Amino acid sequence: MTDTPANPATPAPNRRTVLAGLGGIPLALGAAAPAGHGPRPATAPGDTARGSRRAPATTLLRGAELLLTMDPSVGDGPLGTLHRADILMRHGRIAAVGRRLPAAPGTRVVDVSGRIVLPGFVDIHNHLWQSSIRGGCSGQDLYGWLAACNRTTLARIAARDMYRFVRLAALDALQAGVTTVVDWVHPIPYETGAHYVRALADSGIRFVYAMMPPASGTGPAGRDGPAGHVTRVKRDLLDPLPLASLQIAAHAGMATVDTLRQYGALARDLGVMLNSHVLEHRGDRADDPIRALRLAGALGPGLLMNHAIHLTDDEIALVAEHEVRVAHCPLSNMRLASGIIRLPALHARGVRTGLGHDGGTNDTSDMFGVMKAAVGLQRALHQDPAVHPTIPDVLRMATLGGAECVGLADRVGSLTPGKRADVVVLDPGTLNFAPRIDWTSQIVLNGQPPNVSHVFVDGHLRKADGRLVDTDTDAVVREAEDAADRVRDIL
Amino acid sequence: MTDTPANPATPAPNRRTVLAGLGGIPLALGAAAPAGHGPRPATAPGDTARGSRRAPATTLLRGAELLLTMDPSVGDGPLGTLHRADILMRHGRIAAVGRRLPAAPGTRVVDVSGRIVLPGFVDIHNHLWQSSIRGGCSGQDLYGWLAACNRTTLARIAARDMYRFVRLAALDALQAGVTTVVDWVHPIPYETGAHYVRALADSGIRFVYAMMPPASGTGPAGRDGPAGHVTRVKRDLLDPLPLASLQIAAHAGMATVDTLRQYGALARDLGVMLNSHVLEHRGDRADDPIRALRLAGALGPGLLMNHAIHLTDDEIALVAEHEVRVAHCPLSNMRLASGIIRLPALHARGVRTGLGHDGGTNDTSDMFGVMKAAVGLQRALHQDPAVHPTIPDVLRMATLGGAECVGLADRVGSLTPGKRADVVVLDPGTLNFAPRIDWTSQIVLNGQPPNVSHVFVDGHLRKADGRLVDTDTDAVVREAEDAADRVRDIL
Repeated sequence: MTDTPANPATPAPNRRTVLAGLGGIPLALGAAAPAGHGPRPATAPGDTARGSRRAPATTLLRGAELLLTMDPSVGDGPLGTLHRADILMRHGRIAAVGRRLPAAPGTRVVDVSGRIVLPGFVDIHNHLWQSSIRGGCSGQDLYGWLAACNRTTLARIAARDMYRFVRLAALDALQAGVTTVVDWVHPIPYETGAHYVRALADSGIRFVYAMMPPASGTGPAGRDGPAGHVTRVKRDLLDPLPLASLQIAAHAGMATVDTLRQYGALARDLGVMLNSHVLEHRGDRADDPIRALRLAGALGPGLLMNHAIHLTDDEIALVAEHEVRVAHCPLSNMRLASGIIRLPALHARGVRTGLGHDGGTNDTSDMFGVMKAAVGLQRALHQDPAVHPTIPDVLRMATLGGAECVGLADRVGSLTPGKRADVVVLDPGTLNFAPRIDWTSQIVLNGQPPNVSHVFVDGHLRKADGRLVDTDTDAVVREAEDAADRVRDIL
Repeated sequence: MTDTPANPATPAPNRRTVLAGLGGIPLALGAAAPAGHGPRPATAPGDTARGSRRAPATTLLRGAELLLTMDPSVGDGPLGTLHRADILMRHGRIAAVGRRLPAAPGTRVVDVSGRIVLPGFVDIHNHLWQSSIRGGCSGQDLYGWLAACNRTTLARIAARDMYRFVRLAALDALQAGVTTVVDWVHPIPYETGAHYVRALADSGIRFVYAMMPPASGTGPAGRDGPAGHVTRVKRDLLDPLPLASLQIAAHAGMATVDTLRQYGALARDLGVMLNSHVLEHRGDRADDPIRALRLAGALGPGLLMNHAIHLTDDEIALVAEHEVRVAHCPLSNMRLASGIIRLPALHARGVRTGLGHDGGTNDTSDMFGVMKAAVGLQRALHQDPAVHPTIPDVLRMATLGGAECVGLADRVGSLTPGKRADVVVLDPGTLNFAPRIDWTSQIVLNGQPPNVSHVFVDGHLRKADGRLVDTDTDAVVREAEDAADRVRDIL
């Protein structure tokens, strides 16, 4: 694997020549990305990693052995598969996908021959701060874990320690190939939230900050009130960051219909999604959260439901009818003894679903493990290898499907020219992955986080040759350990 | 992490001083291992790794932060837990466990401060040759996979390619912390078996070669006949290797009662266990394999059953009554849609169980993933976080429990002085594992193969600082890819 700038003395191949040489191979070009023209842009705001400030505006991944573009209009079959092709990234976007693409002078050329390239993973449900309680309360179900680990710890995390926990978890996700994370954030003071957002931004990951409006007139809401607090976080903390966006977080089972209605109205006012935990534990049935969301007028494509394990047939029909999206977190559901989601029934009704790690109840970032569990849990339960999700299904859920669930499919989730360049390179030449038999299946069945050799977010190189770029991981670990010293005695 | 010989100029602390300094900390000494005395032995036979030929006879792991010895007489609680202690290995055995152990001149001292030490994992069910079909037939259940991937490929693997596939898989297991593997080997010609065994021996892993006697008078059996063939493999291939032992492999559902009786008699004659697949697929019920084993007189502590997913209540009672052992392979069972083993019911009856990867149906070696799945599958199904196996249960299953199942608990499975020195060191200072909250749980919930920093088998260092010792893994991968070129076109 080499990572060398193209020699400026070598003239870039003529576009016409390149196109002529393509034969029957699909080539896709981004409308926003004319090849080799235009001024070199300034570095994007929010790009604070030292290595990235120096990065060229254009990167060519040359000669990937297998590309799963997830776009059937770019490649073959449902996963948009291509063989031996290049990806050109320019100004943070995917500019072109095809064979023998030209490298203009100044282009960073990364040789990915023998490698697999796919869109970065989209993790649509996480709580990154919960790296503070990894492995904690491991003999408890959801309710026990919430009471003994989650609430007690959250209340004790100082703002600067929040930065440390979130940074560790965000970098863990990034190194494992997650390029977009949806972080459902519990109510925290503004200052703590500022540290939370800064940790996410500093990691270089694309993120959705799903925040729960604080209770009216007390604590975090302060003088702003709930809506004012959220608006302030959006305006002052998130809007300046090109990789950040907002959702309104809720817990339908714990909120009144009135509160859910207010949250829904706020989400609509701000043009963002509502993101609610629903029926994770069988005991949540007592709260009838689907009824509450229905009465609040919240059911619709602007609602993301997390877990949704214990839906009845009627509720599945309702969820499908209103085009509600569902986040599935199999490893968390297994760890917390929550149950087995009715994924085949949701799929049969056409409900869009994606995958999530779910923070400290998983307890680490490994989308390969999450995909494997999502497939295997249904197979083991139904004793049917054709049950949804199949292996292609789960690869789509982990990428484009997740992006669709959270309204980001116009930006990420597939290697479609014009989309933002969130790209992952896998090295299959390892003892756990080789030899090559069926690489698409091997991604799910053999892949481990160390197979992620390169990660690009918005065109910026965040992991190269198996290491996070310009990141002192030892220091990140050390600082998280220091922070844990201040909270772990309660567990 | 340093790995430096003790300075010979520094006198070793006096034994009495060391003992006096121990206070209330448990110290265990091996009867077979007087400290600092006796001649330095020759290198053990079968030790072919270059690095190991040079290795000192004595190694001290100094200052481990957490030791799970798995021996309640050595440490605290069911997992025999110790904090900040050392392990002394001498002549391939564990010589002592305790604090501030002396390092005699010539001792290799490995600083494991901040690390976790536990016995090497014991994988009691695998088919290492199936690295040749990783990811293959991924949309099939057991029967479809057997027909389309397993049988067709096995028949095409030449002897020299068998070496390559087995070597890759054995090294993958070793790097993931597996120090003992039970390999259920399908009937293969003697010459292919010789390559199989050599690949295992060259890897440095401890192994049980469970071989199925070939059909009488034809093919592999040749002039020797089934029993003669097995005896020859044992005498010529396995007995010279100190890390090798034998089992008789069977498939109760596919064999007649007479055949099973013969296998059982052969196993008893040779003083080894019978190792049979049982009720992996619900369709196996038609063969009534438990009845066949009962009629063949094979039920007893000398029988290991693999999978045993579809046991009835009566069969579980029978298995328990006869002290039959069970190998559980959760990730394989999930991948092949085989079903969910009735582990809590087996446990309630006192049946001994261990864990297995199960070769190409898993498709890689990750005992952390296997443990996590074994716990999570039962929790998700029963919606009970206290269901068997708990996290301590599964850690024991992956080590001492497995050793007990295959009759090796007198040699391996716990860090008990006098046992062979099969030891694994974990580095918890990584983005996926830190910070420290509950390390014992984090091994299962956060651990990944790269956390395995050091592996010792029989006292020999096989992995150090995250890399296999004296192993060109790129060449191993390349050779397996070459071999796969010759078989993959059938898939």
